[in-house]
Amino acid sequence: MSAVIEGRPIGLALIGSGRMGTFHAATLARRIPGARLVAVADPAPGAARRITADLGMGRDHTDPVEVFEDAEVDAVVIAAPARFHADLVVAAAGAGKGVFCEKPMALSLADADRAIDAARAAGVVLQVGFNRRFAPDWRAARALLDNGELGTPRLLRSVTRDPGGFDPSRVPPDTIFNETLIHDFDSLRFLNPGAEAVEVYATADALVEPAWRERGLLDTAVVVVRFANGATGVAEACFEAAYGYDVRAEVFGSGGMATMGDGRRTGMVFSDAAGRTVETARSDQELLADAYVAELAAFVGAVRGSAPPPVGGEDARAALAIALAAAESVRAGRPVRIEEVAK
Amino acid sequence: MSAVIEGRPIGLALIGSGRMGTFHAATLARRIPGARLVAVADPAPGAARRITADLGMGRDHTDPVEVFEDAEVDAVVIAAPARFHADLVVAAAGAGKGVFCEKPMALSLADADRAIDAARAAGVVLQVGFNRRFAPDWRAARALLDNGELGTPRLLRSVTRDPGGFDPSRVPPDTIFNETLIHDFDSLRFLNPGAEAVEVYATADALVEPAWRERGLLDTAVVVVRFANGATGVAEACFEAAYGYDVRAEVFGSGGMATMGDGRRTGMVFSDAAGRTVETARSDQELLADAYVAELAAFVGAVRGSAPPPVGGEDARAALAIALAAAESVRAGRPVRIEEVAK
Amino acid sequence: MSAVIEGRPIGLALIGSGRMGTFHAATLARRIPGARLVAVADPAPGAARRITADLGMGRDHTDPVEVFEDAEVDAVVIAAPARFHADLVVAAAGAGKGVFCEKPMALSLADADRAIDAARAAGVVLQVGFNRRFAPDWRAARALLDNGELGTPRLLRSVTRDPGGFDPSRVPPDTIFNETLIHDFDSLRFLNPGAEAVEVYATADALVEPAWRERGLLDTAVVVVRFANGATGVAEACFEAAYGYDVRAEVFGSGGMATMGDGRRTGMVFSDAAGRTVETARSDQELLADAYVAELAAFVGAVRGSAPPPVGGEDARAALAIALAAAESVRAGRPVRIEEVAK
Amino acid sequence: MSAVIEGRPIGLALIGSGRMGTFHAATLARRIPGARLVAVADPAPGAARRITADLGMGRDHTDPVEVFEDAEVDAVVIAAPARFHADLVVAAAGAGKGVFCEKPMALSLADADRAIDAARAAGVVLQVGFNRRFAPDWRAARALLDNGELGTPRLLRSVTRDPGGFDPSRVPPDTIFNETLIHDFDSLRFLNPGAEAVEVYATADALVEPAWRERGLLDTAVVVVRFANGATGVAEACFEAAYGYDVRAEVFGSGGMATMGDGRRTGMVFSDAAGRTVETARSDQELLADAYVAELAAFVGAVRGSAPPPVGGEDARAALAIALAAAESVRAGRPVRIEEVAK
Repeated sequence: MSAVIEGRPIGLALIGSGRMGTFHAATLARRIPGARLVAVADPAPGAARRITADLGMGRDHTDPVEVFEDAEVDAVVIAAPARFHADLVVAAAGAGKGVFCEKPMALSLADADRAIDAARAAGVVLQVGFNRRFAPDWRAARALLDNGELGTPRLLRSVTRDPGGFDPSRVPPDTIFNETLIHDFDSLRFLNPGAEAVEVYATADALVEPAWRERGLLDTAVVVVRFANGATGVAEACFEAAYGYDVRAEVFGSGGMATMGDGRRTGMVFSDAAGRTVETARSDQELLADAYVAELAAFVGAVRGSAPPPVGGEDARAALAIALAAAESVRAGRPVRIEEVAK
Repeated sequence: MSAVIEGRPIGLALIGSGRMGTFHAATLARRIPGARLVAVADPAPGAARRITADLGMGRDHTDPVEVFEDAEVDAVVIAAPARFHADLVVAAAGAGKGVFCEKPMALSLADADRAIDAARAAGVVLQVGFNRRFAPDWRAARALLDNGELGTPRLLRSVTRDPGGFDPSRVPPDTIFNETLIHDFDSLRFLNPGAEAVEVYATADALVEPAWRERGLLDTAVVVVRFANGATGVAEACFEAAYGYDVRAEVFGSGGMATMGDGRRTGMVFSDAAGRTVETARSDQELLADAYVAELAAFVGAVRGSAPPPVGGEDARAALAIALAAAESVRAGRPVRIEEVAK
Repeated sequence: MSAVIEGRPIGLALIGSGRMGTFHAATLARRIPGARLVAVADPAPGAARRITADLGMGRDHTDPVEVFEDAEVDAVVIAAPARFHADLVVAAAGAGKGVFCEKPMALSLADADRAIDAARAAGVVLQVGFNRRFAPDWRAARALLDNGELGTPRLLRSVTRDPGGFDPSRVPPDTIFNETLIHDFDSLRFLNPGAEAVEVYATADALVEPAWRERGLLDTAVVVVRFANGATGVAEACFEAAYGYDVRAEVFGSGGMATMGDGRRTGMVFSDAAGRTVETARSDQELLADAYVAELAAFVGAVRGSAPPPVGGEDARAALAIALAAAESVRAGRPVRIEEVAK
Repeated sequence: MSAVIEGRPIGLALIGSGRMGTFHAATLARRIPGARLVAVADPAPGAARRITADLGMGRDHTDPVEVFEDAEVDAVVIAAPARFHADLVVAAAGAGKGVFCEKPMALSLADADRAIDAARAAGVVLQVGFNRRFAPDWRAARALLDNGELGTPRLLRSVTRDPGGFDPSRVPPDTIFNETLIHDFDSLRFLNPGAEAVEVYATADALVEPAWRERGLLDTAVVVVRFANGATGVAEACFEAAYGYDVRAEVFGSGGMATMGDGRRTGMVFSDAAGRTVETARSDQELLADAYVAELAAFVGAVRGSAPPPVGGEDARAALAIALAAAESVRAGRPVRIEEVAK
């Protein structure tokens, strides 16, 4: 593909125009050198048009098929609801388009395999939206792992706390595992390079919205992931934090410790009678703005052929397997081995 | 007892003159208003004398019984090896002495009960050496819990990492649970006031000294503690951290989050080509110096009758139950309910 | 002007393609919604073309006059050497172009007045490159001043330390005042809204390159600025810091204190035997990346007519007056009143 | 003297029982190994007795002469009002007592010389209460200077901000220089070892209590101190900070930068809707508790003969000279050379 594209901007189409899609569209339109947003598709009437109008560029569609048939589209960015992801990846790959798919790429391992196989068969790039890998703190920690300064990982931690305001009635079962903590599962893997998860123990409850407990809502969870190299990772999440959006990680190895994610809105410190205060970030897009740009820039580079995608379908699958094991662990009340869910 | 003691210094005796005992002796001699170190006992020939000579005060003994029979001794500080703790508490209480016992107060729940019963029967103060409760950060976090600002705890974390240098051959089985993590179990309880542990899941391994794995050495562990109020705590420990002694905690509640323990040696920041660096503490006695003083000051106050001991035998028992469940969880490979070990 | 431009992108031309110009060009090309880079001019043969080729857009010129005559150019960004700034502003304004001029806008107050008058006469926007006003920390501090939380300023501080590597033979006299500290003089004014400088005391020396002292090189300076409202500001600069690029500020008022500028490259903290380390930023463009984008976005907004320029010619003049008084203070060895230099 | 004292505790007397004296008394009574508080003197009826009664030790006097005649007193700690310091030093030295004198040791250079000469003639230890030299941050920075890591100092800063609540009618002229900033002048000297001040420029005003300006109250000041080695130090002070007691310093040298003083009450960080907050210290005794102990421990060591006093009469004189030059600079409105005030 790179030979074809060399020398002209990569044509990109966005599928899905929700909160995340809208954000990606603005990034694609303005922040990615060598890329061009040529189309937006969303089945909701007017949704795609709203974005193209705001940005002053791109054709709008209600059917993604039109995007797949568009010769100017080199690659697609999938930000539709999670349950459509795998089919969209398969369709896009089938049309020869490079694919960037928001997480989770699939909700079952069978679907994940379908998506991976389709991309492989088509020879197209498949990248997954694990944005933290592109955040400066996480990249810097990984550099310390890659150059040996952190030594062998022993204990890891990854945290996600959302600022709240969710609608309990719209949270499907296992959301906390396969939509929220899936980021943390990937982070644990990213920070323990080369080691795979072997067993998972999870506990979860409805603490933010106790009234919804009986309907199966899990808004707070802790997951212990044991890796083949002996390291243990702990992932935790909660759907509501009074102080905003909180994404952190820690990797402790034989050579030292790296901590990531300080959650500050700015570096300005205000001292008054209450003490010394720093404002905290209130949304993922505020906290991880640079990471969203970097992941799409990397994707465009991969489509152009300059490097393989830095996080692909197999990574999505491995994180999903941990999520499935975690959900099963809560149901079974015991640790669950990855091989139980990933037969 | 307070009536008797009112108006004169409390006479204190130290039992055990190892690393911790030596440190306590200096604290007792110099830092505790209203207290007087009158005796030190240690069975090793010359050990007690070394301390009394250094401090220029106190009689030295090789048999703790002499301390119990000493009318000038109002209370004892037990810093002998853990396996002697319960018997020493029982003997001291039987002699009518107030008792401060280093953690763990006992290695079995039966022993813990014996110690608690002996102190209760004798009507003497029994305080346990959970020093973090007296560290300024932990006290400040607890104040936020007590005044409601943190709301209801949802997720907790407590970390202990030692600076290393241990002798693997001298680490009894389950040490990481009943000597190291017992601090963290108490911290989790302290930071989730009024809620008791109901279930424990633990995983542990020999990562620092893999060669000792087959002999049962566990130098690195993660323990998940589920509490009756729905909160989940994670305790983790490792016997070796490249950057020194690391004791931290975090409590996340409906009202916000408190983090404790910054591990700095001083507040001086040095910026050079390597970046911006703060030195880290290298020992518990450096990191928690103020807490060691505060716990003994509180004990002397309790002996004087001004307030009940802030952390007592029941707290020691509850933390031990978690430690026993954690050790059992590692053996059984499954979560263990507290009621299984604390019948 | 806004009526004319409404509904199409603002056409921008860059004049000057040095380090700063090249950086601005990339920002104009990719980061500013509603703007279009249409031309680059630089008298050095091939310099402008290098930029337009890299970015894949814009015509290149060696004579800025060609830019002024270009009807597609709505506004210019002047990043030529400082001694050409005032004439370029006058010429651009004369051609009816909006003007963004890098600091210092002029090297004499007469030139500053010429530039201000030309822009006013032509009715064009004139904005000056005091980028710190757009940095998140500085904006947040100013918000605390504007909403009253900081109260009345009493003491202010602004610091600039460059990472070194400069060529002493190419540093004109007074550079530290009119090219480096001019940022700090503007910051002090920005953080003490509405108050003007009345007296300046400065001391400066060649400490980085003592051998150049006799040639008049001043590489390290401290400047005290007394304001009409009683507040005192201290600005300091040095051309070489071992730890990178360091830009900070502090404003202390009756209501509290705000500190700005933490100099970190990322938020990742590495703990090892050396302690706890954060990497520091190594260049202004790394440290102030967001501010460079924000100032140009604000300029484009001003050209479009949506708001007046947030920092204009009068601000440039006021900062220059402080710089001139500082240089005179060093020569005279005494405090110098602003009215002495700004007759 | 050391030969005489060897082997028994140093007998110490306190002169002056105000806020600082009371604090020193408690330190002397409980925190200094090898020392014994044997007497307290204060002319106010009952003042000394209140302290000795609280501590349960020491004789009380209303006339310091009784202390000087007391054979059990090896050394005195002078915490009387500043105007009595020099005479008390002379009297104590004349009686052969070691002397620890709170800052300022004298209010004129002639008095400083008298005190220095008296101690020298008597062969007694004379130490001055510049406590910041004993604070952990300052000691750590000095170690970096002594081992060369900071290189040659170029720019220094020292800050003192008091928490307010002072009574304007009780603040003598020049208090901000000779009682408050004298700490900062000593800190600048401490952080620029071996270099002496040559010229001082100061500006000061009544900003906290503007109504008292006409009576000469100066509550806010900035002082620039030029040193013989080319380094420039800035000292600033204000009598009222909304956020508590603020003592900081910074030394920037050819090798890097050290910053001192973080003003935190504890390391506990609370995150809630307001952001992330750390409590700040509210008094010098809270912020510098360890330094107050360390300076008296060093003094007792010096009296015992184990080492010379780490900060002596010449240091007090040098800081006073800067204070006098600063006060003169404000009056004269120009920089003042040290040799003008220290003829």
